[in-house]
Amino acid sequence: MLKKSDSIVLCISGPSGVGKGTVINSLLEKFPEFSLSISMTTRKPRGQEKDGVDYYFCEKEEFESLIAKKEIIEYDIYSNEYYGTPIGPIRESIKEKKDIILDITLAGSLQIKKLIPQAVMVFLLPPNLYELEKRLTERQTESKEAIKARMQHAKLEMVHASKFEYTLINNKINDTINCLEAIIVAEKCKYLRQEEFINEIIAQFQ
Amino acid sequence: MLKKSDSIVLCISGPSGVGKGTVINSLLEKFPEFSLSISMTTRKPRGQEKDGVDYYFCEKEEFESLIAKKEIIEYDIYSNEYYGTPIGPIRESIKEKKDIILDITLAGSLQIKKLIPQAVMVFLLPPNLYELEKRLTERQTESKEAIKARMQHAKLEMVHASKFEYTLINNKINDTINCLEAIIVAEKCKYLRQEEFINEIIAQFQ
Repeated sequence: MLKKSDSIVLCISGPSGVGKGTVINSLLEKFPEFSLSISMTTRKPRGQEKDGVDYYFCEKEEFESLIAKKEIIEYDIYSNEYYGTPIGPIRESIKEKKDIILDITLAGSLQIKKLIPQAVMVFLLPPNLYELEKRLTERQTESKEAIKARMQHAKLEMVHASKFEYTLINNKINDTINCLEAIIVAEKCKYLRQEEFINEIIAQFQ
Repeated sequence: MLKKSDSIVLCISGPSGVGKGTVINSLLEKFPEFSLSISMTTRKPRGQEKDGVDYYFCEKEEFESLIAKKEIIEYDIYSNEYYGTPIGPIRESIKEKKDIILDITLAGSLQIKKLIPQAVMVFLLPPNLYELEKRLTERQTESKEAIKARMQHAKLEMVHASKFEYTLINNKINDTINCLEAIIVAEKCKYLRQEEFINEIIAQFQ
C-alpha cells in the first residue's frame, strides 16, 4: 500500500548543534528510498567532490539567474561564493514520486512550506539550553565567539518552533529516529498522498 | 516525552464490514492507555454482547431524550434502530488528557471534527468492492437484503473518504495496526500536543 503513496518532502530544521546531521544520516540508512537534497554552490570542487553528489557546482551568473527566477529556495554567501538550495531537484523528486530529505535552515523551511504545502516540517529542539551549548562546545570546531553567536541565533530560531507541524526533542537519537519513522509512515497514510489509488477503490462502488 | 503530550481523540470510520471492530480491538490491546468510546443503540444485543461493554443498550424513548439534551454527538438510523455516540466520555477524556478511540459513523466523524478540530480522523477502506461483500456475507448475521442495503450505504460513504486526513486500506490487519501505531506516535509528536513543554524549553533561551 505504502509504495503507491505520493512522495514525501521532509524538512529537518533546528538550531545549530541540535544534531540534524546525525539524525539525517541515521534516517538515510534506515530509509534508503530517501535521497538527500543537494545544495548548489559557485565555489570550485575540492578534492574528490563530485558534481551532483556533494554539490551542484555552477557559475555565478547561473546561480544569480536562478535566484532571479526564484529557483533557489534560500542561499547564503561565504567567502564570496554562493551556497543555496535549488528547488528544481525537489520538484523532480515529487514528479518521480521519490522521497527527499532536506537539511535546511528555519527560513528555508518556511519558504518550502509556502511553495510545497504538503512538505513535512520537523523542528528539532535540544532537551535544554545547556545541552545545546555543550554539544556546540564538544564539536571543537568553533571559537567561543562563534559558539556565542550560534547560541544567539538559536534564541531567535527557537521561537519559531510553533510554525512546524512536528517538534521533536532530540534527546536520545534512537527515540528521535523512531518518532521520525512514525511520522514518515503516518504521512504516507494521508489521503492526499494516496488520492489516486483510494479513488480507484471508491470508483468500484459507483 | 510522549507521555506529556495532550490526549488523542482517534476516530475510526469506514463502511460496515470493513473490519473496524477487529482493528480497534487489536489497537486497544497494543495501547492500553486508550479507552474505547462506547456507542449507544436501541437495537437488541446480539450473541454475547454486553451492556456498557459492546454498546449502551437503551430504549427508544431514552435515546430520543438524550438527543433532545444534545448529549448525543451524532446518531444514525439503520434498520429502524438508533446508533449514536454519547459526548460525555469524550469530554471527560480530553479533560483528563486520556486517549480515546471512537468506532464511529461517517456522519459522526465529521461532526466530531467540527467540535474537536484536533481529533484524528481515520477512514478504513476495503481492498475492493468484492472483499467488502465477502466480509459482510461471512458474518452470517444478516439477510441478503440487509447486506444489499449495507453495500448501498457503503457506496454513499466511500465518496467521503477524502474528508478524512488518514485513509487506510484494511487488507492485512497487521499492516493496518502498524499504520495506526505510526499515526498515534506521529500525532503525539505534533507541536499542538506538546505546546506546554516545548514552550518551557524555548523560554530557557529567552
